[in-house]
Amino acid sequence: MTGQMTAQPPAHADLYPTRTGGEFLLMPREDRVVHGAPGDGPLDAAELERFGGAGYLTFGDFVTPAEVDEFRAELARMSADPRVRAAESTIVETSSQEVRSIFDVHRSSEVFARIAHDPRLVDRARQILGTDVYLHQSRVNAKPGFGGGDFFWHSDFETWHAEDGMPRMRAVSISISLTRNHSFNGPLMIMPGSHTTYVSCGGATPQDNYKASLMMQGAGTPNPAALTQLADRHGIDVLTGEPGSAVMFDCNCMHGSNGNISPYPRSNLFFVYNSVENTLVEPFSAARRRPEFLGARDFTPIP
Amino acid sequence: MTGQMTAQPPAHADLYPTRTGGEFLLMPREDRVVHGAPGDGPLDAAELERFGGAGYLTFGDFVTPAEVDEFRAELARMSADPRVRAAESTIVETSSQEVRSIFDVHRSSEVFARIAHDPRLVDRARQILGTDVYLHQSRVNAKPGFGGGDFFWHSDFETWHAEDGMPRMRAVSISISLTRNHSFNGPLMIMPGSHTTYVSCGGATPQDNYKASLMMQGAGTPNPAALTQLADRHGIDVLTGEPGSAVMFDCNCMHGSNGNISPYPRSNLFFVYNSVENTLVEPFSAARRRPEFLGARDFTPIP
Repeated sequence: MTGQMTAQPPAHADLYPTRTGGEFLLMPREDRVVHGAPGDGPLDAAELERFGGAGYLTFGDFVTPAEVDEFRAELARMSADPRVRAAESTIVETSSQEVRSIFDVHRSSEVFARIAHDPRLVDRARQILGTDVYLHQSRVNAKPGFGGGDFFWHSDFETWHAEDGMPRMRAVSISISLTRNHSFNGPLMIMPGSHTTYVSCGGATPQDNYKASLMMQGAGTPNPAALTQLADRHGIDVLTGEPGSAVMFDCNCMHGSNGNISPYPRSNLFFVYNSVENTLVEPFSAARRRPEFLGARDFTPIP
Repeated sequence: MTGQMTAQPPAHADLYPTRTGGEFLLMPREDRVVHGAPGDGPLDAAELERFGGAGYLTFGDFVTPAEVDEFRAELARMSADPRVRAAESTIVETSSQEVRSIFDVHRSSEVFARIAHDPRLVDRARQILGTDVYLHQSRVNAKPGFGGGDFFWHSDFETWHAEDGMPRMRAVSISISLTRNHSFNGPLMIMPGSHTTYVSCGGATPQDNYKASLMMQGAGTPNPAALTQLADRHGIDVLTGEPGSAVMFDCNCMHGSNGNISPYPRSNLFFVYNSVENTLVEPFSAARRRPEFLGARDFTPIP
C-alpha cells in the first residue's frame, strides 16, 4: 500500500498570476489591507477605516514649507549634477534633456534618505502593514507642463509581482507633493476601492520591459473592459492638494494621471514600503529581475 | 499748392497681426466684448457682466435629455454612414477608424440644422454681438477615452483671422455637451478674462495648415512665455457639467483641453456665430482660404 501524501503548495505559490499569455481577468484580492490597530501608530480608527475602504489616505500638511523648499532645492541640485544625470537610475527626457525621474534617492541623497526614514512616513507604513518595513523603491519625479504626457492606469503591485517577485499585497506607497496639484495639471487619479480587485493582465513580459515602461507603458496595462468595469464600480477620485501634502496608497490601487497642457509642472517624492514578511523572490512573470534601483533586494528593516 | 490728404486706413486694416515671422506678442483687444443690453435677449444683466469679464457663460440645462438622446443618435447615425465618413469635412482617426469630428452639420443634418437655428442659441448670440448673426462653423465632436489626446491652448479667433479672414473679434461659440464632463476626462479649460488679450503668434502659416491642424496643432499656437503670463494673470477654469449643459464663449478666449485616460469619452455640438458686420475677407496670414466647411462664406443672416 502506498502512503498518502498531502499536497503542499510550493513555497511561493503564485496567488496573483498575470501576463501568462491568456485573457485579462478580474480576481479578488487574497490579502488583508490594514494589519494594524489604532494604538499601533499615528493613524486613528477613522483613518484606518478609510484606508481599508478606499485604499488611500491624503494628508494636508504632511511636511513643512521649509522641507518642501529643501526637497525642491535638492531635486534641482541633483538634476544639474552630471554624475546623477548619467546614472542608469536617472530618467532624462531625450528631446528636452530634462530630468524626469531620479530613482534610489534614499541611497544617493542624504536629504531624501532622511525623509524616507522619517517616523511620519515609516510609522504609518508599519501601522498599515503590521510589521517592520523596508524600502522597496524610492524616487523623485519632475513632471513638465505644456504637454507633459499621461501615465496610463495600472496597479503598481502587478508590476512588482510580475517583474520584481513581490509575493503578496503588503506594501504601501507614500507620495509627497512638492508643487500644487490642480485638477488640471495631471494630478494622481485613483479608483477608490479598486485595491480589493486584482487585474490579471494578458500578454507576456518582453525582455527588459522596464526600459520601455519607465517612459511609456506596455505589458501590465489593464484592458479597456477591466478598466471600465472598475471605474463604473468605484468611480475616479482626483487628488488635488497643496505643496507639502501627501497621499498614502495601497500597492494595488488602480491609478494613473492625465497629461498636462497647463504651464504648471508637478514634482513629488515617492517612497514604497514593503513588509519584511513580504520580501522579494524571483519574478513571477519575467525572465529576469529588474535592477535594484527599481526593486530593492536589501531587505534590512528601517530602524 | 498741394491739397492736404487725410490718411485713410485701408478697408481691412489688420488690427490683429499674427504669424508674420516675428516674435510672440501680447496685444490688447481692440473690440467690445458685449454689444447688447439686458432687454435685447434672454441674458440678464448679471450674465452679460459675467460674459464681459470672464469671456464665457455656462448653462446647466440648456437642452432637454430627450434632445441629448436625439443628438447622440444623429451622431451615431452619421458616424456609420459611408458617405459622411468619406467626406473631406469628416475627420476619421486613422488608427481606430473612428469618427472624431463632423463639420458643417448645420448643412448636412436636419437635426443639427434645427438646433443651430434654435432661438436658445441664436438669441443669445445676437444679444452678445448686437447684430444679426450667421453660422461661421458647425461641428459635432466625439472625443475618446482610454488615452484620447489633448488639444493645446489656442484662441479660435487667431486662426479664424489668420486663415479665414475674420476681421474683428465679434463672434461667439456655443458648445452643447452630449456626455458628462468630469474634471478627469479632458473637459474644456478656459483662462477666464484672457479674451481681452490677443496673442500675436510667431512663425508663419504653412500651406494647407488646416489639414494638419485639425488633428494636431502647429501654427497659431501660443508660446510658453505668453501662456504662463496669461495663466498667472487669469487662472484656469475647468468646465465640468452634465449632458445637456452648454457653454457660450468669446472667440478670443484662450482655451484647450487635456488628454483623457479615463474610460469615459466626451462628445459635444459646437456652433460658431459671427456678426453680419464682421463677415470674412481674404485671410490675413495665409496664402489661401480654408474650405467652407471650416470658414463659411454664406453670410446669410439666420432668420
